[in-house]
Parts: sequence; C-alpha cells; structure tokens
Amino acid sequence: MSDAAPKSTRNDLTSVENETTKEGERRRNAVSPDEDLLLAAAYVYDAQYNRNIPFETSPQAVRLYYFYNHWAMQAATYLFIVVDLSLALFEDPALYSLPFLATSLVEVACLLAFSGRLTHYGKVTPRDVFWKDTKNICVMATIVINFLDLIIYGALKMADIHSIRWSRVLRPIYLINFAESRQIRRAFRSIRNTLPEILYVFLLFLFSVLMFSLMALKLFGSRKLKTAEGAPYFTNYLDVAFDLYVLVTTANSPDVMMPAYDYNGWYSIFFIVYIIINTYIFMSVFLAVVYNNYRKHLKNEIRKLVYMKRRKMVDAFNILKVKENTEFVVKEDRWKKLVKLVAPDISNAHRELLLRVSDDKQTGHVDKDAFVRLADLLNIQVIATKARWHPLEIWMPTLYNSVVSCFIRKVVQHKGFVYAYDVVILVNAIFIALDERNPLISYAEWVFLTLYISEILLKLYTYEPRTFFAKNQFWNWFDTLIIIAALIATLVNAGLKSASQYNSQQVLDIVFILRVLRLIRIVDSIQRFRVIINTLINIVPTMLTFGGLILAIYYVFAIIGIEIFKGKIQFFEENSTAPYSQECGNPALKDSAFSKSKYCKNNFNHIASSFIVLVELTVVNQWHVLASGFAQVTHEAAKLYFIAFHVVIVIMIIK
Amino acid sequence: MSDAAPKSTRNDLTSVENETTKEGERRRNAVSPDEDLLLAAAYVYDAQYNRNIPFETSPQAVRLYYFYNHWAMQAATYLFIVVDLSLALFEDPALYSLPFLATSLVEVACLLAFSGRLTHYGKVTPRDVFWKDTKNICVMATIVINFLDLIIYGALKMADIHSIRWSRVLRPIYLINFAESRQIRRAFRSIRNTLPEILYVFLLFLFSVLMFSLMALKLFGSRKLKTAEGAPYFTNYLDVAFDLYVLVTTANSPDVMMPAYDYNGWYSIFFIVYIIINTYIFMSVFLAVVYNNYRKHLKNEIRKLVYMKRRKMVDAFNILKVKENTEFVVKEDRWKKLVKLVAPDISNAHRELLLRVSDDKQTGHVDKDAFVRLADLLNIQVIATKARWHPLEIWMPTLYNSVVSCFIRKVVQHKGFVYAYDVVILVNAIFIALDERNPLISYAEWVFLTLYISEILLKLYTYEPRTFFAKNQFWNWFDTLIIIAALIATLVNAGLKSASQYNSQQVLDIVFILRVLRLIRIVDSIQRFRVIINTLINIVPTMLTFGGLILAIYYVFAIIGIEIFKGKIQFFEENSTAPYSQECGNPALKDSAFSKSKYCKNNFNHIASSFIVLVELTVVNQWHVLASGFAQVTHEAAKLYFIAFHVVIVIMIIK
Repeated sequence: MSDAAPKSTRNDLTSVENETTKEGERRRNAVSPDEDLLLAAAYVYDAQYNRNIPFETSPQAVRLYYFYNHWAMQAATYLFIVVDLSLALFEDPALYSLPFLATSLVEVACLLAFSGRLTHYGKVTPRDVFWKDTKNICVMATIVINFLDLIIYGALKMADIHSIRWSRVLRPIYLINFAESRQIRRAFRSIRNTLPEILYVFLLFLFSVLMFSLMALKLFGSRKLKTAEGAPYFTNYLDVAFDLYVLVTTANSPDVMMPAYDYNGWYSIFFIVYIIINTYIFMSVFLAVVYNNYRKHLKNEIRKLVYMKRRKMVDAFNILKVKENTEFVVKEDRWKKLVKLVAPDISNAHRELLLRVSDDKQTGHVDKDAFVRLADLLNIQVIATKARWHPLEIWMPTLYNSVVSCFIRKVVQHKGFVYAYDVVILVNAIFIALDERNPLISYAEWVFLTLYISEILLKLYTYEPRTFFAKNQFWNWFDTLIIIAALIATLVNAGLKSASQYNSQQVLDIVFILRVLRLIRIVDSIQRFRVIINTLINIVPTMLTFGGLILAIYYVFAIIGIEIFKGKIQFFEENSTAPYSQECGNPALKDSAFSKSKYCKNNFNHIASSFIVLVELTVVNQWHVLASGFAQVTHEAAKLYFIAFHVVIVIMIIK
Repeated sequence: MSDAAPKSTRNDLTSVENETTKEGERRRNAVSPDEDLLLAAAYVYDAQYNRNIPFETSPQAVRLYYFYNHWAMQAATYLFIVVDLSLALFEDPALYSLPFLATSLVEVACLLAFSGRLTHYGKVTPRDVFWKDTKNICVMATIVINFLDLIIYGALKMADIHSIRWSRVLRPIYLINFAESRQIRRAFRSIRNTLPEILYVFLLFLFSVLMFSLMALKLFGSRKLKTAEGAPYFTNYLDVAFDLYVLVTTANSPDVMMPAYDYNGWYSIFFIVYIIINTYIFMSVFLAVVYNNYRKHLKNEIRKLVYMKRRKMVDAFNILKVKENTEFVVKEDRWKKLVKLVAPDISNAHRELLLRVSDDKQTGHVDKDAFVRLADLLNIQVIATKARWHPLEIWMPTLYNSVVSCFIRKVVQHKGFVYAYDVVILVNAIFIALDERNPLISYAEWVFLTLYISEILLKLYTYEPRTFFAKNQFWNWFDTLIIIAALIATLVNAGLKSASQYNSQQVLDIVFILRVLRLIRIVDSIQRFRVIINTLINIVPTMLTFGGLILAIYYVFAIIGIEIFKGKIQFFEENSTAPYSQECGNPALKDSAFSKSKYCKNNFNHIASSFIVLVELTVVNQWHVLASGFAQVTHEAAKLYFIAFHVVIVIMIIK
C-alpha cells in the first residue's frame, strides 16, 4: 500500500477516472451486463466496508472474489486462526494433554487452510500485486517455517531427542496479517509509525534513570543499610538500576525508599524528585508524543480511506454509466439492481428512500456525485419503526382487545410499572446481601424469579415481540437472557439438590453471578447512566481490535515464557508434603518475596497460567516480585523478559 | 466574574466602547494629561498580563492601584502566605518546636498583612464590586475565623485545656484566593466545572464496584479461604468493597486474587473481568469526560481572556485618542510616553520597532486596531543580539587580538572543542562509577574539576560574558552553577578532612550529587535531546501552577491527618529497646503488614512526615497498607480519609 497516495489525491483521481473510463468502454463490448453489474457491486461492497483488495476484473475472478468475501469463508479463516492459536493449550506443556499426533494433525490442517486461503487470495488479486505485498510473503514464510519446525520436532521426538517448538511464537502473524484483520493491522501500523519519536524520549528517560541510579549508589551504597527483608540496600549498580526502574512503575513504592528514609529524613527528597521527574513528567511527555503522532497518522489513514472509497465508487460508476444528454449517469433500473445485489436484505421501502435521496430531482437516473455517496448511504442504519400488529391481536382479536387485556396493557405501559420493578430489584438486592442459607430467603428467590419472568411475559404481551427483540434493544435482550439463564441454573441446582443432596459448586456459582447481574437493570432506569452505558457499548468494537492486538502480544510472550520458565515453579495444595512445597518446589525461592506472597500458582507451566501471569504483569503492581522470583529460579537476565514485556505493554496501553 | 460575558462579546463590545467614550470625554476635562497617561498605562498593563481587577479611575485610586501591583507588594504577599503556611512546621506537633507565643505572634502578623492587602484592594476597586466578589468575602471570613480560633486556643491553653487548632485547614485559601494566584484559581475553577459530569460516571463506577463486591462475597465468602497472611478471605462486605476498591488502584494486585486463584483457576476470570471493567474501561471514560469538559471550559476561559484584553485596550485608547480627520487616533509622542511608562526597561531600538509595527504607514499616529495589538506586541520577546565587544578587547586590545589569543578563541569556537569535552564527560562518568575510595581516583576528581573550570573560563574568554549569561542561555547557567557549587563543596570537604580527619556526610552527599549532575551536560550535545529538554523547561510555569494546587490539597489533608493520627505511630531506631518498637510503638500493629513492611516512619507526627506520607499515597502503591495501618491504630472509618485523598488526587492528576 503506497503511503504517497493520499498526498496526490486530486491529481490521481482525474487520471484514474480517465483511465478506467477507457477500460470500461473496452469491457462493455466484451462482457454481459449482468457481469458488469456484479463487478460494479463488488466495487460498491468494498467501498461500503472500506475493504482494499485489488482484484482482477474478469468475470471468473469477480465470482471468485465474491466467494473470497463470503461470510462463511471469513468465519472459517477466523476459526482456523483461533484453532491454531489455541493449540498451545494442548501442546506440551499442556493444560489438557493431547498426543503429539493429534495436535500436529490439527496444526497441519490449519496450515493447509491458511495456504488455501492465501492461494484463493492469489487467484483473486493480480499476480504482481500479490508478490509485492509484504503481508502475503510474511504469511507464506510463516506457513513454511511452521511446517518445517513441525517436521523437525516430530522427527527428533521419534528419535527421543527433546527440542523446542520455537516457531509457535510466529502464530499471531496469522491473526495480524490475514486480510480480514484490517483494523488490527491499522492499529499496528500506527504504533510502528510512532516508535521513532518515542525512541528519543525513551533514551532520555533511560539516561535519567541511569544517572539517578549512579547517584543512589554513591549516596546509599556505602551506608550498610538493609531492606525490610534484611538484604543489602543499593550496593550493586545493576540492582539499583532495576529497583529504580521498578520505582518508575511505582510497584515498589514506598518500600524502596524506607531504608534511606529511616536513616535520614532528607533522603526522601531524592526519591520524591525521582518520582516526579521519571514517573510523572516523563510519562506526560510520552503521552503527549504518542498522542500527537497518533493523531497525525490517524488523519493520514482516514484521508487514505476516503480516497480509496471514492475511487472504488468512481470505478463502479464508470462500469454502469450511460450518456444522458451531456453527462454520464446511471439509469434508475440498473441502480436498483445494483442496490439489490449489494444489500439484498434491505426492504423495498428502504431502497426507495435511498433512491429518493440519490435522485432528489426524480429524473429517473442517478448522477455521478449522488452515485459516489451510495457507499455512505448504505452504511446509515435506517430503523424501520413499523406499527406492527401484535400477533395475539391477529390470532384472537376479541380476547386481546377485551377490557381486562386492555387494562393489563395499560398497566404495563404505565411509568409506575417501571418504578414498581425498580423497587423489586432493590428488595432483591437486600435479600441477596442477606445470608442465603436461611430457607425463607432461598424461597424468596423463587418469588423474585417468578416476578421477573412475569415482567418479561407481560411486556411481550403488551409490546410487539419483534419490536421488543429488535437489534438495538440491548437491555431487553440482556434481561431476557439473564432471567432465562437464572431460571435454568436454579432449576438444575434444585434438581441436583433433591436428587443427590448435593449442591454442585459450579452451578451454584453461576446462580450467584446471575442473581447479582440481574441487579444491573436498575442502572437502565436512570437516564444519565443509560447514556454512559450506551457509549460504553458503542466502543466495544474498538476495544475488540485492541483486544486482538493485546492477544497477539500476550501469545508471543506466553510462548517465550513457557519455553524459558516451564516447570521451574510448581504449585502445591495447602497441606502438601512434597519437598519444598512452601518454596514453590524450588529451593532457590527459600525466603524470597515470591514464595512468601504465595505466588506459586503464578507460573509459566502452561499457556493458561502464562496468560494470567501476563495479565498480572499488565496490571503492573508487584511485577518486580514476579520478575525477581523467576530470575531466582533461572538467571538474573530473566528480568529482561519482564522489562521487555512492561515496555511493550506500556506503549500499547498509552496508545 | 460573569460567565455570560464571552457569549455576547460582539454586542457588549460596541456598547462598552460607546459608554467609555462618553466617560473619557467627561474625564478629559477634569484631569491632567499625565494622569490620563497613567490610567491608560494601567489599562495596558492589565491587558498585557491578563490581569482582571476592576479599579477606580480617580488619579489617587490609579496611583494606589500601581502600588498594589508593585512587585514588592506582590512578593510580600507571597512571602506572608508562605510564612503562614510554613507555621505548621513549628506549631504543635512540631518538626522544630517553637513556643506558642512565637508562632501565634507570627500568625497575627500574617493575618494583619492579609487584612492590609485586602484593605488595599478594597481601596482600589469600587465598593460594590468588592463586596460582590466571593473571593474577598472568603478571605475575610478566613482571616476572622483564624483570629478567633487563635484566641480561643490561646485562652484554653492558658487554662491548660487542650483543644485543636482546626482553622489551620483554611490556610490554603490565602494561596488560592489572593488575586495574584489567578492561574491556580483558573485551574481550580475548571476542575469545579468538570465535577458534575464526573459525578455520574463516578456513581456508576461505585455501583459497579459494589455489585462486584456482592458477587465476590457470595462466591468466596463461604469457602473458608485464607489470605497469605492467614486472615479470613472476603467474609465481610465492607472489607470486600475496600479490597476491591484498592484493586481498582491496582495496589493489591495480584495478592487479592491469589487465594481464590489457588482454590480454582477459573476464579481468575472474575478478577480479570473486574480489572478490565473497573480499572481500564472506567478510567478511560473518566479521562474522556474530564478531557472533553476541560477543553470546553478552557476555550471559554480563553475567549473571556481575549475579550477582557481587548476591552482594556479599548479603554486605554479612548483615554488617549484625539480626532484626526475622520477617525480617532493616538498621537506618536503620547504613544511613546505610554510605552515608556508601561515597559520602562525596553531599549529605544525596541520601542522604535514597536512603533514601526503599530504605525506601519508612518503617519505619525497609531490607529485603534494597531493600538489594541500593543498588549500582545509587548509580550513578544525581542532578543537583541547586539554584536557586543568583549570587555577584554576594550581593556587590552593588543593582547586580546594577539596571535595566541586568536588561536585560543578559534579552538574554543571549533566543533572539536565540544566533542573533546563530551569525551571528558564520558571518562568522568566511568571514574564516578568506579570506587572513589581509591586515592588515584579521588585525585582524578581534581583533574576533572580543573578541566571543567578551564572550559568555562575559556568560553568566557572567547564569548562576550553578557551574551554568554543571557537569560535564555539555560545550559550556560546550569554548567557554571553546578561547577562553582562542586568547587566550593569539594574545597569545604577537603578542608574538613584535613582539619578533622572526618568527612562531613552532608557535604560529601552534596559533592556526589553535583558530580553526577555534571554528567547531564552530555544531553545538551545531542540535538534531539536538547529539543525535548527545552520543551520540558517551557512547561515549568504550568507545572508550578499545578504544584500550587497540589500543595493546597496536601496542606488541607496533612493538617487533618495530623489532628487525627498524631502520635499513634512512632518511629524507633533499629536497635531501640522501647516497648513495641517493632510495632511502631503501638501494640495494635502487631503482625500487621504495616509494621512488617517497616513503615513506622510513615506517620502524621508532624507536617513534614505527613507530606511524605501524602506523596506516597499519591504514588498509590501500597496505599492500602498505610490505610489499614492507620485504621488499626484508630478506627475502621479512618480508611475513608485515605479513600477521600485518593479520589481527590486522582481527579487532580487526570486533569
């Protein structure tokens, strides 16, 4: 993708239009109008979803392109990516152990699927474009490397030689580089662009930390001070630098200061100045640099997107246009066919509305400017609020419109109904807070369940069900799902209890959680809260992109962590008699902060626990205890792994 | 101050101009031209420094107003504020104890000074404006309350009844509300304006924490789990809520999770979800809300400032204007007199430049638009780079221009000179890192000192001293001060050593720090770093405002903390034999995390240690240990003090 594109938008645009006009002329003589329409629809599609895949325009290639973009193919690709990534759960060291043959067969299947997808992409896109795109080369190389690594590992395993499946580190490349993950790639690119600017601030920051470390060593090193654990205080330059780097993350404040502060009150000034400069000021500078750069790059990206969108729409227009008087236009019937092809599930009324907007003078054709706007028009959600008849009214009108029925509906629609249920929720909250071992209270639970279920039934009786469960009615969906799940879980629990006199802990936990989740509904009754929650729901897609990026980074670090630290630290049950069970099975951890804090379960023995350790490292607090623990069971240099993770994750989060 | 002003800027402006025109007409007949000039200069002054004090326009009041704004008066006010605030150092419980009579006499002096300043302000400003301004009322009330409190406390003390000097909490009001601290007040106002918006998000956040606490209580409360310290885990609702609030600040991660995680790996999901929602998502929402509001209010403030500035300049113009042909103008000689009055220390050349800009057509008078721009013109720093003669060249030209002298000057100006000294600094860094007890190395220190001093002397020989020490030459100042200080400290140290065979620790510490600080100069050699450092230096004034605000908050919390917690926790030397010396002198702290972490010196026994505790609380890490410690020696409700401080300081910092 050329970065130069947006800069010369204007000039390019005209030349592109002229060029494709000629091409369109040529094409029109060769292919049928239906195939034309298909090609134009593909362009509109791409513009609508901001896709940017250069594809060949022969009818076969276009059909292949449609197939490539089919939701099932995309879902399958994602599925294979997820399966490939989750293989780590079953590979040695496994959370759920599977034989090597099983995991390797699944991996081969995934690799074949990725190859197939890439081949498909190769057929769709022109040959020279395909080979110029680094992301294709990248995926291809990863597939080959994964294959080779798998074969070598298998062969060595048969010869009983232990080796490392090191190429697993590369798996997140599929997540980032497959064309479907445009958002993730864009985020990745904007981070990469920010790096050079950050680098200088980071170097200055590092310089500052090292200067302060030198000062600390000179000030405190010869005082023979002891830390709270009795270790020597600030006597080794590397240790001092590590301690002060940890202080930037605030994770060892105020402990790192206490020995010096106890010795002389004035020394606290050293640490306060250090924190102000290195934590607060440098962090602000980092933030400012990243924010500025991010905005700049974002602007570029958006400009590029807009340019691409317009270009695609112009392409589509050039295919369908006919000359009407002096200007080129698209006839109304062709336009309608196109829209039907692009958006098959919108209603007739909606399509008519779009036409009215595009052809506001009702000339029977759509001109170029209006046509180009179509991609954006299609993205506008039109909520059709049809006054639908309630199904019950159609099936038994007399009963539904009887006096009693009307009264019920009026009650449900009344404001008091909402308030009454708010009171029910509050009372429910009190009951939940009370002890549930009292039988009276556990009966009350049935009463509340009945009340909630009857609320939903009453609402369904009053409001039209399809309107009630419309796509944008988040809270109705939420309520119903929670209540149904609670009903099922409570029934299962009661069933288990009467059958075996035994509460299943899992089911009980779920019942508890569902009960408390029900209380969230009270938030919906307060307008201001609803606004905030809706905003939060709207940013979920952005957060998912971010989540994908975090997942890729976690995966890489988890795999590396597993290979370095697996088995070094073990978790034992409370009253285990295994040797060194108090030291996480490793005598090197005797009297360490790691074992004293009972962090034994924070280990890299399988991918799930590795992820949890990485989450803890992301939260930052106590990360130095984890880092020191793992350094004690391996080598001091292991701290570099933790520092690297911290730096990477900080860059991610402040982005 | 009316917030409505900026909204109707345009309309107001015309009416104001008309009104003051008439007033100016009236005045011109009554007062002498010199007094006119003085009044106009006062307006220009105010516009230049964005001051906004409505003052009376009678000649006496204007003179009084000049006196009010005199730098000595302002400095005196600040001095009295600082003295008043620092009284807490000497009042019981004191860091340096002084008799009550002394501190109360000083306090009375301060209060009298504040009263005087306020009276002065009252004489300057119109009576009705004075009494309408809440900040005057506020200061007045504080003075009265401080007086009464002082008298009551003194009287009770004489009767040997112990009471509390509670009105000390109000002292920061002087810092915030005296007219000189406009910046602090503006920051305060913008925070106050943001509060309502934050409140709703905060309530939702609180609701979320309480919901999760309920869930945690239900999930883990009945499991009989134990924390790493052996305490019961999640059995009391209030404790759970506190623990989970602490988890939002990440201060007890991952410890708070470990018992549940050890019990069952899946429970980690509960904590991960909790952190994602309450730490990351809610913090982002807080940030977004605050940032949006802050920008909105900032825009308003700036618009208001611009409006005020223009208004003042128009007022000044109306006083000085005369009719020239069809339009009003200010004659050149009056304009010059005005500028001489407003900016007495700018050079003639600079004034001529300003005139040339204001009267670009050389008509001999300045029109209204050009006149209004004067306030901004005066704020532009004009750096006069005069090619000054070196004083030595004037005193002894033959020697200074001799071949040897010229050669020296050429060497110093050469790039290689800078590089050579970069190498010296690097070698110095290596020597500093080595052990200084080796006599060879301590002699090397003298070599380096000589090298640095000769560098400065050589530069002073080559470059003109006044240019070298110009205001904007930050690094030259920095270098010279550091080197001179190092020289003095090293001499003092050597003197002490030879006189008493004894190294003074304080002097040695200072020598160490100065030595390391010298190394910072290497940063200046790299262009990119210099840019970053200069940016940092430029934001110092903003940071000072922020620092003032933080100081006010710290002071209030420190005074409250002293009154609640003083004497509850004591610090003892390492091998003290006092009872409970390991428990900070308080048996309630036996086996607590507070005493185990040796936090005894983190107490509220005087204002200095209180400030340090508050800094530690600002850094957030381990704040729950401090909070729990102080709660154990007083009452559980003491945690509220710490939570309140955390909430306030978070709001400040994200602003």
